[in-house]
Amino acid sequence: MDETPQFFEDPEGTQEALIRATYHALCEHGYADLTIQRIGNHFEKSTSLIYHHYDSKDELLLDFLAYMLREFEETVPEETSTGAVERLETILDGMIAEMNPAGHASFIRAMAELRAQGANDDRYRDHFTRHDRFFRERLAEMIRTGIDDGVFREVSPERTAALLTTVITGSLTLQATTDDPQAEAVREGVRALVDQSLLREPSS
Amino acid sequence: MDETPQFFEDPEGTQEALIRATYHALCEHGYADLTIQRIGNHFEKSTSLIYHHYDSKDELLLDFLAYMLREFEETVPEETSTGAVERLETILDGMIAEMNPAGHASFIRAMAELRAQGANDDRYRDHFTRHDRFFRERLAEMIRTGIDDGVFREVSPERTAALLTTVITGSLTLQATTDDPQAEAVREGVRALVDQSLLREPSS
Repeated sequence: MDETPQFFEDPEGTQEALIRATYHALCEHGYADLTIQRIGNHFEKSTSLIYHHYDSKDELLLDFLAYMLREFEETVPEETSTGAVERLETILDGMIAEMNPAGHASFIRAMAELRAQGANDDRYRDHFTRHDRFFRERLAEMIRTGIDDGVFREVSPERTAALLTTVITGSLTLQATTDDPQAEAVREGVRALVDQSLLREPSS
Repeated sequence: MDETPQFFEDPEGTQEALIRATYHALCEHGYADLTIQRIGNHFEKSTSLIYHHYDSKDELLLDFLAYMLREFEETVPEETSTGAVERLETILDGMIAEMNPAGHASFIRAMAELRAQGANDDRYRDHFTRHDRFFRERLAEMIRTGIDDGVFREVSPERTAALLTTVITGSLTLQATTDDPQAEAVREGVRALVDQSLLREPSS
C-alpha cells in the first residue's frame, strides 16, 4: 500500500490521469454506484487498461486514497514561515464550512461513504486510521510550534489536536449526511474555543 | 414516516420483536451485508411476514430508525430534576468513550454505515437531519436551563449545542471507522472545554 504500484511508474502521466478519472467518477456517482466502467468513462486511455491492473473498484479506490494521502503528506510542510494561528485558521476555514462549490460537496459525500467502509472493511479502516493519525500529528506539531513561539497557551498539543480532528471529522460527516450541518455555528464555536482556550492573548 | 405503520399496531408485540431482530441482525452483519432473510433469522415469527410488509431492507431500516428516534424522543425528558451538568456529563460519557462492550461497538459501526447512506439517499438524509436537529435542540435546552439555573455561563446555547453535537458525531464516526479514535483524549478535551467555557465556576 505504501509502495507506488508498478502500473503508476510511467512517464506518460497514466497515474495522474487515472487519479483524476477516479476523482471525477466518485464525485459524479458516489461510492455505492461506482464501477470501474464508470471510472473508465472519465479516463482518457482505454478502460481495459484499468481492468488489467485492478480486479475490483475497492482495490482501485484504496490506491486512490493512498495516493491522495501521499500527496497530502508531501504538500503539508512540517515547518513553515507562516504563523501557527494563520495555518490553523486556514485549515478550519477549509474544512468547517457550508459547502458552496458543488464539486467539493460531492467529494465530501463520497469521502464519507468511503470512510464508512471502514466499519467493516479492514483495508479502509487501516487507511483512515493512518490518515487521521497523520492529520492529528500535523495539527499537534502546529500547536507545539505555536506554544514554542509564545502565541498559544501551554495546552496539551495531543489532546487539543485530537479534539480539533474530531470536530473536523464530525463537521465533514454532518455536511455529507444531513441538510442542516450547522457548519457556521460550529466554525463560530471553534473560533471561540481557539480564542478562549488556545490563544495566549484572547482576541476581542 | 412519522406514522406508526399499521403492521405495527398489533397487541402481540410484533413491532418490538421486529425491531429487536433488526437491531441484532444489524450488529451481526452490518448494513452492506444485511438482508431481510438475515433479519428473519433473528425474528421469532415467520420471515414471510416481513417480506409481506417490506419490499426492501432500506424500507425496514428507515422504519427501524424512525422507531428508535421516537423512543429516544419519548425517553429523553424535556425538564428534569437532575442538574444540567450531570445530564450533560452522562451524555458525553456515554457517547465519547472507548468502545468496550462488543455489541455497542457493532451498533456504532452499523449506525455509521446507515448515516453514510445519507450521502446519496434522501430518505436517510432526511432521517439524520431530523435526528441531529432533535439531539441538538435537546442539548440547547439543557444548556439554556443550566444558564437559567446559574450553573452555566451566558454562552450561546445554540452554538454550544451545535459544537457538542459535532464533537459527538465526530467521535462516533472515528470510533466506527478507525482503530485509533482517541476517545479518551477527546473526552478530556471536552471536559476541559466544559470546565473553562461553560461552567460558571471552573472546577479544579
